[in-house]
Amino acid sequence: MRSVDVGRTTRQRVAMPNPSSIGEFDLIARLRAAAGAFRQDVLIGIGDDGAVLRVPRGRELVVVMDTLVAGVHFPRGTAAADIGWKALAVNLSDLAAMGAEPAWATLALTLPRPDARWVKDFARGFAALAKRHHVALVGGDTTRGPLTITVQAHGFVPPRQALRRDGARAGDAIFVSGTLGDAAAGLAIVQRRLRTDATTTKRLRARLDRPVPRVLLGLALRELASAAIDVSDGIAADLGHVLDASGVGAALDLDALPASSALCALVPDVRARRALQLGGDDYELCFTVPRNKVARVAAIARALRTPLTRIGTIERAPGLRDANGRALARSGYAHFSRKSQA
Amino acid sequence: MRSVDVGRTTRQRVAMPNPSSIGEFDLIARLRAAAGAFRQDVLIGIGDDGAVLRVPRGRELVVVMDTLVAGVHFPRGTAAADIGWKALAVNLSDLAAMGAEPAWATLALTLPRPDARWVKDFARGFAALAKRHHVALVGGDTTRGPLTITVQAHGFVPPRQALRRDGARAGDAIFVSGTLGDAAAGLAIVQRRLRTDATTTKRLRARLDRPVPRVLLGLALRELASAAIDVSDGIAADLGHVLDASGVGAALDLDALPASSALCALVPDVRARRALQLGGDDYELCFTVPRNKVARVAAIARALRTPLTRIGTIERAPGLRDANGRALARSGYAHFSRKSQA
Repeated sequence: MRSVDVGRTTRQRVAMPNPSSIGEFDLIARLRAAAGAFRQDVLIGIGDDGAVLRVPRGRELVVVMDTLVAGVHFPRGTAAADIGWKALAVNLSDLAAMGAEPAWATLALTLPRPDARWVKDFARGFAALAKRHHVALVGGDTTRGPLTITVQAHGFVPPRQALRRDGARAGDAIFVSGTLGDAAAGLAIVQRRLRTDATTTKRLRARLDRPVPRVLLGLALRELASAAIDVSDGIAADLGHVLDASGVGAALDLDALPASSALCALVPDVRARRALQLGGDDYELCFTVPRNKVARVAAIARALRTPLTRIGTIERAPGLRDANGRALARSGYAHFSRKSQA
Repeated sequence: MRSVDVGRTTRQRVAMPNPSSIGEFDLIARLRAAAGAFRQDVLIGIGDDGAVLRVPRGRELVVVMDTLVAGVHFPRGTAAADIGWKALAVNLSDLAAMGAEPAWATLALTLPRPDARWVKDFARGFAALAKRHHVALVGGDTTRGPLTITVQAHGFVPPRQALRRDGARAGDAIFVSGTLGDAAAGLAIVQRRLRTDATTTKRLRARLDRPVPRVLLGLALRELASAAIDVSDGIAADLGHVLDASGVGAALDLDALPASSALCALVPDVRARRALQLGGDDYELCFTVPRNKVARVAAIARALRTPLTRIGTIERAPGLRDANGRALARSGYAHFSRKSQA
């Protein structure tokens, strides 16, 4: 990791002098101060060629990686603190979908120019979520270029307890956590396709900008779920990945898709609301549960104070259908979903 | 990891139809076919939300991450296969500088458009180096945006044997592997600041485009070196990081910096050649060795058939000096080095 890369910083400065620019060293120092290593299992953190880490005995290592590109994965103009939060959140969501306990993260930050204010805000958002889950930032790389953020997160699972995509079996119940569609509505508001009052705007944009990864739910599902995935691309597309990996099909009850009261009030038309609910970026967990364990789901929902809604059933015949048996094209909803977040 | 992310692929296709475009699924399939998991310690590889990996008992985990941006870290127009090689090579070089044995890699690939030919060539270059070091590609993320490649590599070290930057002590000898300056000369040729015959051009460009990480040397140095770093930004800048981390200074013998015969023939002027030797991108290892172990360096050089040249001595007084005691500004060579590789 080029954590204190004077050479490149020099080139940056030569290439684009900027009164608010800071060197890469300061940039990393800011990130380290905000979210640097504080865990005993971090033997060497930020500042060397690499991090040296200790995986607990008897645990398997889970590694996830997600990239956010400005204008594709978040609207241009999104606050730096929100981008910092979201860059980590989408990765913790992947760890949750694997049933992993989060531990460490690394960050590759590509910035058009070194900008002290932007980095400070980015680090604040990143650190706020990192602290909530005891995640240590152990290294990274900062480079000059178009705004792109890649985060890799590491977590642990007990042997053979990772949640997978390929374990769904005919007869399993399909559940989803929380509600669907708020993030898509938030994006529609940003893009001026929807309008509402300030309070609702704030609430829905928060779902887009500051998704809350379902980390504790992921841990609770280890011994319950036969398959799991997080909802980033829309429930139809993501459930489709589970079906493909498991070699099964499903009936999805579109009327059962959970919606927030804010979304119901804003978009009373069922068809329009459903389009948003299939839109993605919710970072809820979609999971399947064998019939004989379904009764235990309610207890988890109560314990975590998280709505867990049954939305369908796994079936033997391949393909995704609605409750009336009509085929649902996973990409059939692409025209509803955003093309980009520019 | 959005390895089979139909949603985003759909959005890519909607946004920019392209006859040679391929979906993200095919793109990942190509990478998996070329360099996918074949190691027994990969329990779940590409295709789920994350990879599940087993770190050998009694080993510490070393994690490195480096980003390449087109026009900054490689010249625009660089062959896709060379970019694939280099993206992994710079990370294996960081692992070597930590004394770590390489194991796994993940890849975040941001492409302006899905391009089957480009990805095939990229995967070929990546896989060629991965196979050489038994590195398995265990996951990744592909997104649309300006060409940027982030690779994270994982390796193992025995407890407390990782090579660090902060262990150099006054009296230690400073060594560098191989030769310095070929990559900078290769870049000068690409940028038409230097001209030579086809054979020399090919040889020097290979040093720029296909750096060979010093993996075996890194392993051999575990019990010998007091500090190590890889030379990516130029020997003065990188040695400077070791000095800072260790709280020491150094005398660097500029006349001792090793140069290839090709470079000596192409740039007979000593001053001009030295500028190239300080230019960076060589991915050699720079390391320090306590006085009582210096005699063992020659045996390693013979065993690995790798030149290891003594280029200076660590001193108590902070700062970097030449053999005559004149201060060497680490950034004083920035005007020689490339500003970008556009």
